[in-house]
Amino acid sequence: MLSAALRDGTAGRRCSFEVFARSLPPGRRYGVVAGTGRLLPLLSQFRFGPTELDAVASTVDESTLRWLRDYRFTGDVEGYREGELYFPGSPVLTVTGTFAECVLLETVVLSVLNHDSAVASAAARMVGAAGGRGLIEMGSRRTHEDAAVDAARAAYLAGFDATSNLAAGHRYGVPTSGTSAHSFTLLHTRDGHPDEASAFRAQVDALGVGTTLLVDTYDITRGIATAVEVAGPRLGAIRIDSGDLGVLAARAREQLDGLGAVNTRVVLSGDLDEHAIAALRAEPVDAYGVGTSLVTGSGAPTAGMVYKLVSVDGAPVAKRSSQKESRGGAKRAVRRARESGTAVEELVHPAGARPPHGTHDRDLVVAMMASGEVLTGLPSLPESREHLRAALVSLPWEGLKLSRGEPAIPTTFLP
Amino acid sequence: MLSAALRDGTAGRRCSFEVFARSLPPGRRYGVVAGTGRLLPLLSQFRFGPTELDAVASTVDESTLRWLRDYRFTGDVEGYREGELYFPGSPVLTVTGTFAECVLLETVVLSVLNHDSAVASAAARMVGAAGGRGLIEMGSRRTHEDAAVDAARAAYLAGFDATSNLAAGHRYGVPTSGTSAHSFTLLHTRDGHPDEASAFRAQVDALGVGTTLLVDTYDITRGIATAVEVAGPRLGAIRIDSGDLGVLAARAREQLDGLGAVNTRVVLSGDLDEHAIAALRAEPVDAYGVGTSLVTGSGAPTAGMVYKLVSVDGAPVAKRSSQKESRGGAKRAVRRARESGTAVEELVHPAGARPPHGTHDRDLVVAMMASGEVLTGLPSLPESREHLRAALVSLPWEGLKLSRGEPAIPTTFLP
Repeated sequence: MLSAALRDGTAGRRCSFEVFARSLPPGRRYGVVAGTGRLLPLLSQFRFGPTELDAVASTVDESTLRWLRDYRFTGDVEGYREGELYFPGSPVLTVTGTFAECVLLETVVLSVLNHDSAVASAAARMVGAAGGRGLIEMGSRRTHEDAAVDAARAAYLAGFDATSNLAAGHRYGVPTSGTSAHSFTLLHTRDGHPDEASAFRAQVDALGVGTTLLVDTYDITRGIATAVEVAGPRLGAIRIDSGDLGVLAARAREQLDGLGAVNTRVVLSGDLDEHAIAALRAEPVDAYGVGTSLVTGSGAPTAGMVYKLVSVDGAPVAKRSSQKESRGGAKRAVRRARESGTAVEELVHPAGARPPHGTHDRDLVVAMMASGEVLTGLPSLPESREHLRAALVSLPWEGLKLSRGEPAIPTTFLP
Repeated sequence: MLSAALRDGTAGRRCSFEVFARSLPPGRRYGVVAGTGRLLPLLSQFRFGPTELDAVASTVDESTLRWLRDYRFTGDVEGYREGELYFPGSPVLTVTGTFAECVLLETVVLSVLNHDSAVASAAARMVGAAGGRGLIEMGSRRTHEDAAVDAARAAYLAGFDATSNLAAGHRYGVPTSGTSAHSFTLLHTRDGHPDEASAFRAQVDALGVGTTLLVDTYDITRGIATAVEVAGPRLGAIRIDSGDLGVLAARAREQLDGLGAVNTRVVLSGDLDEHAIAALRAEPVDAYGVGTSLVTGSGAPTAGMVYKLVSVDGAPVAKRSSQKESRGGAKRAVRRARESGTAVEELVHPAGARPPHGTHDRDLVVAMMASGEVLTGLPSLPESREHLRAALVSLPWEGLKLSRGEPAIPTTFLP
């Protein structure tokens, strides 16, 4: 495409590409925009170095190769801030520049937004289901090794408290947390017999009594008794990773209280998703460790966003074949809200025609890059996390239900 | 765990960790081991450099930090070769060394194998459904930007012909292929009106008449007519990305034949998965482009493999709490087969007790690393691809059905 466009002179036409999702994953009521914060630096630093040029050398002609060698994105980007909710048709990101410089960015833009938004959208539902109890991201081993780091970031954005991924802690400042594995308990034997007590003692010696002891390697009731014997009643937490978690949590709480360990927290893990978390609401649980379902988007592993050309030299363009029709022209959006602050409608309008605003209506599209440079003053990850928290509160209550349904608010498109 | 084990002296105990899947994803009849070829170099090069040490500095004590600084894996690895089929309980990989050196590798081992095996397992079903027709991997934009490259590798291992991911071409030697996007057609306008012909002409000028023209931006019938007008009857292929693909493929074939473009291939894309591909068997399709469903494992985005301590100082160890019981001891496996070559059973046995072999039985576990070094002579990616092709042929025919069912062969565990 690039070679052909450079050759016939269309490469330099000024274009806008829009990122949007045609629909939410089946039954989902909202989506969470995530990944923007790590995407923008990738766009400003997008270059073809020797490795990349070598990779495409056999695919493109010499003049295209020269063009790639000098490539840097010099266009503009605007869109929904990270942590914003989105709905079908929301103009999540708009990239404007020459056709050639924008078309090259499609893959990185969509990969980042589709992955991170899928994880954050699932994570936000878990955060809602947990109702204020702690949530630890523990899914690194269930996804690609590099995706794992960004999944931890997306989970934190959505309200998770911590991750077991130390790289995410280092790279993004996500709080880290962890417990031990069954292997650590199994490692400890005495004369060939299991010796849970010495495993617990080693952990407490290394990390203090505030640590979390994994009590379900052998018999859980004995595991809890041993844990409190070793660490004393000031033990930080126990973790249970198997069995009927609701029943076990209640029993564990009772046992801990009976042993005087009234402040020892109960942490559950093991194939939890938002529905399992919701089902544990009545049980005395303090925190959840969530892995597989989080990093795989809990049934929706990609957000389904697309990157479509909507404008060429100022004129709207749109595909017209069946089923996948799109709306031409660069767009912006307003979230209309009642006086109470409750959102009622996503209003998508042509970029040049801002509709009259009510007091509680909010412009959703903000400038992010100008002439290839990331703008200063964009929100930090903690700020985006807080923004999302507030945005979720603004949804009509039906929008927060876990059950399948329609988008929480309708999207209206102004012509 | 590491700090505690270094402190109490258990860190140096000789351990074996086993990678296995407790079950296949619901209804799947086999799994494909993938990722081994890129995992082994990662293990031999696993180090804690300044960045990594900095990342964990606040988490671990000084002596642990020193230990990490000197870390390199010096143990042994054996397992199923890449491209091997696996079933519930198959000992896919066994990592042996000190507890400390092995426990650190859990995340990278599982991340690589769970991701790549999930993609390859889905891809193999698509390859079967395609029945010899071409398959192009086009899913990069639907998954994390780094996962995308390895997803393309896994798809190729499973029998896909090519990928649109140029980085996978460069890094792994996967053949690359691509077509243009709707944006390229939309870019081409004349006096403000769509000008599909000039888009096609630009592409043919750049890439020759052997290229693949995307004909569904506007009206498909006119798109095909224009494509043949521009490129002539020796046009390489047309691609249709929307609509009722079965109907459209048949119509397109008829139209192309009528125009004399009897060798122009018909390529379909657009939300295809193994079931959609199978449903198109009767239609005149030459190749499929597959994206989302491939990179997300077609409903099973992670292979669900775990990394469990099975042996300490030569003695078997196993978790004994409810539901998640595991079998202790290092294991190997044999695939038993009839004289015809058809597989009948996965026989998992203690590593030290190889059962008597029939003529057609095959040892599945091969040595991969010794004393921290990757062994020479391990299969290349094309060799693994061919191995998988042959392994699939050896399954009982029920095992190749796309419908949900039991594993293609049972797994038996020798005590």
